[in-house]
Amino acid sequence: MELWRLLYPLRTYLVVSGTLEKPNVMTADWVIPLSFQPELVGIGIGKKRYTYELIRKGKEFVIAVPDLKLLKDVWIAGTRSGRNVDKRELLSFTFVKSKKVKVPSIEECLANIECRVVKEVETGDHVLFVGEVVDASFKEEAFREGKANVETIDFLLHVANNEFTSNKKESEFV
Amino acid sequence: MELWRLLYPLRTYLVVSGTLEKPNVMTADWVIPLSFQPELVGIGIGKKRYTYELIRKGKEFVIAVPDLKLLKDVWIAGTRSGRNVDKRELLSFTFVKSKKVKVPSIEECLANIECRVVKEVETGDHVLFVGEVVDASFKEEAFREGKANVETIDFLLHVANNEFTSNKKESEFV
Repeated sequence: MELWRLLYPLRTYLVVSGTLEKPNVMTADWVIPLSFQPELVGIGIGKKRYTYELIRKGKEFVIAVPDLKLLKDVWIAGTRSGRNVDKRELLSFTFVKSKKVKVPSIEECLANIECRVVKEVETGDHVLFVGEVVDASFKEEAFREGKANVETIDFLLHVANNEFTSNKKESEFV
Repeated sequence: MELWRLLYPLRTYLVVSGTLEKPNVMTADWVIPLSFQPELVGIGIGKKRYTYELIRKGKEFVIAVPDLKLLKDVWIAGTRSGRNVDKRELLSFTFVKSKKVKVPSIEECLANIECRVVKEVETGDHVLFVGEVVDASFKEEAFREGKANVETIDFLLHVANNEFTSNKKESEFV
């Protein structure tokens, strides 16, 4: 067994790169907050990915947060490379202008976190892009009172390969 | 709203440091796989944490994977500092010898991932410790056939503050 699988199930996100005119999007489970002040997040991207090339060039990315309803598109984004095909033709996503970065946001997603690369870290066969969060947009009903609304939203969790699940609708408090 | 919260809910883990004779454990949501080959994982640790001191000194850590049943202990581990108190006195965990590292594992957890630090990355108010996975132990029923068993196990998800949830018991396939 590959031992990193012991950290699964993990949340699944979409990483957008490129421009509004020529966007690209891939699926990514390897996403992490990294600092409160400044607000930093990290994404681990395989060095052979087209997204790697685009982020190295543009120095910006958007993390879009899909819910379970978008699973089919998440799967397509994660299994087809934008190097040879314009993924917009395969996806039902609407790419829209972001607030602060050239990379577009995805209208259908629960949230879009706009980031500028401040550091690149080599980690084996991946690179961790550390991004400063410069702005974000989100659906109020998914993040009420500053926190994820698990009572109504099906956030997406990746189990393995083509298997996904979601969160329970109940919270446990301590 | 703090924008990194848009990545939540996130899985919650335990980070063990120190030694079998003097272990310490903290709760951490900021945990990420970083490479397939070599197998690398990362943990983001606040610079003021006691765990930060211990990992800098010992260059090893264990990521222990709790389930929902261990929530009370997870909460204590995340809200009390081991600098002033021996957390073993507060926790119901059994610390046991790991296979390859001096840092102990936690018997009650679903998995224990043993790591040696290969890189330290400054990221704002946190440090990302990049660890090579040198060994692991896990409960067969939680990771059947090399993947997380969401049908029977309640993996732990952190929503915000003292609010947690878990995964659904059904999978969606694409």
